[in-house]
Amino acid sequence: MKRLRWQVVAVASVGLALALEVLPSALLWLRAWRRRRQQQPQREVLFFPSQVTCTEALLQAPDAGPSTSLAGCGCSLPHIESSLSRLLRALLAARASLELCLFAFSSPQLGRAVQLLHQRGVRVRVITDCDYMALNGSQIGLLRKAGIQVRHDQDLGYMHHKFAVVDRKVLITGSLNWTTQAIQNNRENVLIMEDADYVRLFLEEFERIWDEFNPTKYTFFPQKKRGH
Amino acid sequence: MKRLRWQVVAVASVGLALALEVLPSALLWLRAWRRRRQQQPQREVLFFPSQVTCTEALLQAPDAGPSTSLAGCGCSLPHIESSLSRLLRALLAARASLELCLFAFSSPQLGRAVQLLHQRGVRVRVITDCDYMALNGSQIGLLRKAGIQVRHDQDLGYMHHKFAVVDRKVLITGSLNWTTQAIQNNRENVLIMEDADYVRLFLEEFERIWDEFNPTKYTFFPQKKRGH
Repeated sequence: MKRLRWQVVAVASVGLALALEVLPSALLWLRAWRRRRQQQPQREVLFFPSQVTCTEALLQAPDAGPSTSLAGCGCSLPHIESSLSRLLRALLAARASLELCLFAFSSPQLGRAVQLLHQRGVRVRVITDCDYMALNGSQIGLLRKAGIQVRHDQDLGYMHHKFAVVDRKVLITGSLNWTTQAIQNNRENVLIMEDADYVRLFLEEFERIWDEFNPTKYTFFPQKKRGH
Repeated sequence: MKRLRWQVVAVASVGLALALEVLPSALLWLRAWRRRRQQQPQREVLFFPSQVTCTEALLQAPDAGPSTSLAGCGCSLPHIESSLSRLLRALLAARASLELCLFAFSSPQLGRAVQLLHQRGVRVRVITDCDYMALNGSQIGLLRKAGIQVRHDQDLGYMHHKFAVVDRKVLITGSLNWTTQAIQNNRENVLIMEDADYVRLFLEEFERIWDEFNPTKYTFFPQKKRGH
């Protein structure tokens, strides 16, 4: 009888030990799994040409997000999702900062989105190519007039990047120049990646170029060369 | 004394139970960790302009891989790693297939790499833009002469992609046109990603375009329009 009681104690101890050992890990794993499911990092590929659709609802919403409806505008364009509307949503998600590094920027919709973010207090910085910034239809002059900081190259090679970093968290990069011609007619791709490694590398590249294109370092002003 | 013996048995049982419970998981975790370390998927970002370096060793090795030395050529260029040499390594790793979807392709080194792969029996398919394929220095004519299949657009929009898929496993994509001008002078980026989701999406895009650019569907030959 005494022996049986000790056996019960032994088995109970084993059971308790196992429960104590396994339960916390199981709970931790469950919590991590839930977190991963809820915070699935953004991963998307957009292919162009984009169908021509109405994006007014996104540009007029005070706070466009992934669930903002595209309806509401009375125009005759289709009010459905398109590669351009997806790209606008990814940009308009910015709450703190937006780095833009763009060879050519003339799309009026994307220009409006960037101005909206600036008005909302997002810190916007733009790097672009000097050969394309003054072309007809370029958005660069409008962005500068709105008070957005813009820097550009001054050498023969092109500043040919086409990337954006949203809130130091999401990288948007691909073959697409931000022009209506490219959006509506070309075969293009844009990756949207919430990926800390890639974001870090592209932000480092942005800061390198931002520093190098500091206007105080420009050498093409003749008066600077002559020491004025 | 008897009581002490039972206590020892109880403690030993708990210890054994814990060991049996934890050990297999620990071993499994260790094995998974080792596998992850060994088969770390390729993830790389190349930034351009690339330093001008000698890449002869890669193009002359019968089987260039990640460990192929860059030394061996007697020329005066530096024999060190560069963004171009990294890009060449990623391409030359192909063993079965290579899909290329390129707006402009005139780099002699990249052209030689693609011809080498074709000679080694890799199935190479090229999609390009009709406006740029006949320009001076284009590699497209040379690739066709070598027997590589090339298809191109026939419409007004540009085929502006700049991506490659190696062995249906690694995606190479970015802003870089495969020209010496871009490689040596421009600010450019190229992502090298071993990522099944992205590879699948870009291969689908490749097949869509490959099918659409089938020469039997060309409509710009006047004799075809007249029914000849």
